[in-house]
Amino acid sequence: MSDDHRLRADYRAFRRITTRWMDNDSYGHVNNVVYYSYFDTAVNGYLIEAAGTDIRTLPAIGIVAETSCRFLAELSFPEPVDAGLVLEKLGNSSVIYRIGLFSAARESAAALGRFVHVYVDRVSRQVVPVPQLIRAALEPLKSR
Amino acid sequence: MSDDHRLRADYRAFRRITTRWMDNDSYGHVNNVVYYSYFDTAVNGYLIEAAGTDIRTLPAIGIVAETSCRFLAELSFPEPVDAGLVLEKLGNSSVIYRIGLFSAARESAAALGRFVHVYVDRVSRQVVPVPQLIRAALEPLKSR
Amino acid sequence: MSDDHRLRADYRAFRRITTRWMDNDSYGHVNNVVYYSYFDTAVNGYLIEAAGTDIRTLPAIGIVAETSCRFLAELSFPEPVDAGLVLEKLGNSSVIYRIGLFSAARESAAALGRFVHVYVDRVSRQVVPVPQLIRAALEPLKSR
Amino acid sequence: MSDDHRLRADYRAFRRITTRWMDNDSYGHVNNVVYYSYFDTAVNGYLIEAAGTDIRTLPAIGIVAETSCRFLAELSFPEPVDAGLVLEKLGNSSVIYRIGLFSAARESAAALGRFVHVYVDRVSRQVVPVPQLIRAALEPLKSR
Repeated sequence: MSDDHRLRADYRAFRRITTRWMDNDSYGHVNNVVYYSYFDTAVNGYLIEAAGTDIRTLPAIGIVAETSCRFLAELSFPEPVDAGLVLEKLGNSSVIYRIGLFSAARESAAALGRFVHVYVDRVSRQVVPVPQLIRAALEPLKSR
Repeated sequence: MSDDHRLRADYRAFRRITTRWMDNDSYGHVNNVVYYSYFDTAVNGYLIEAAGTDIRTLPAIGIVAETSCRFLAELSFPEPVDAGLVLEKLGNSSVIYRIGLFSAARESAAALGRFVHVYVDRVSRQVVPVPQLIRAALEPLKSR
Repeated sequence: MSDDHRLRADYRAFRRITTRWMDNDSYGHVNNVVYYSYFDTAVNGYLIEAAGTDIRTLPAIGIVAETSCRFLAELSFPEPVDAGLVLEKLGNSSVIYRIGLFSAARESAAALGRFVHVYVDRVSRQVVPVPQLIRAALEPLKSR
Repeated sequence: MSDDHRLRADYRAFRRITTRWMDNDSYGHVNNVVYYSYFDTAVNGYLIEAAGTDIRTLPAIGIVAETSCRFLAELSFPEPVDAGLVLEKLGNSSVIYRIGLFSAARESAAALGRFVHVYVDRVSRQVVPVPQLIRAALEPLKSR
């Protein structure tokens, strides 16, 4: 494993995301903001599929507490993007993901993301433990 | 009134919307898709303010049934946009808005939009009459 | 062919687009504005692939003159969307597309779009004929 | 000054940004991704205004190298957002901004951002010094 998650081999699961014409900004490449929509989509899409349920309707929901991204190379419509996922930490109430974005044809990451979910009660918004259903869904994302 | 709503005088209320860096696309101007976010924001922002309540929590909600836009001139970040609103028709279950988008400094529209809301029960999604609260809020938008 | 393009069989080419978590709005379904980003992406993605070149660098570029959409059914993340394309008209300087959006598993359209491109000189922005390269790329989209 | 930039007094300039209906996601609040579009808009809008020129056409352009955000409170359409800006560091080739997002009526930040621009030659994309015009524009953002 590379020490900073720059390679596809550093991730445990991948989600393919199609880019959009309007993702590109004035400089002709995917705007930095859009990278975070790939993170958001990869994490939630993985969870919905792996948990086999619509996570938006569970009593506990994941609220985004912190995110970050290092931009290493440009992405550009129309090439699709592969978002790699791996767990950095599965805590009592929080989950920290590392996410790598890869141009479809490349082995090294165009961007390195970090994404922190904190679980809260959907009504009271009080912090709660990560639900068992989510814990089980995250099992395959654990770093080897 | 101009016969096709090209002038500020053709509208009854205005909402100022700030443009965003990423609204601009590869050609350096606001992407066509984003114009519709201005329509959506102008209509819902007007309704929330004029109705004095969060319309998202009412028993009847407006669902978008049809929209269209003619693009006449370019808009570009960082200039703000004024969205003019006027009613084309207030029906039993539907409301049709005409929306004009104006660069902050211009008298003639950069885009002409049409936006059709149909009211439905928030749970059953059956079509229902336009709520009285919404009707009252729309009064000032009637064409003279 | 259905008379209003409601079926997959009414379209000549399809582009698969992945939805995103943030496409969903307060009502839990893809926001109306986002449908237009699918149109924009389908048309430009098709052209780039069929023309075999980056259309953004050609001397003549397609500017969006008019778009519209009728919303028939909800779309929702995480399901992918298939955008069907067919030509309504290939004029001297303009191209009119009909676009149908389909949930991955459905035969009838969730939305019916119309998208008008006018070709202009990339520098002077004067209207010009549709380039031969684009005409050839559009051949497979002609309605049978 | 608060040690982590939580207060309006910790920032040197403010940009008001109007929220949009579609900024809200399935949970009824502004989606985490959209916060970054506020950062992007605040930094570039400030630079365009303070430099008195369209920074997109300068020989050196700012490329986003790294961003991050801590989410402290929810933002929600239709309330506008004030983005506060202050310099963390003005380096030889890079500029690091701290950005605080505030609900219009609040004194404490809803989100704390960090935004790193690296200047590159617009054609070769080689790293270059921060242009003098940009340095002068940044003067008022220096932390006292």
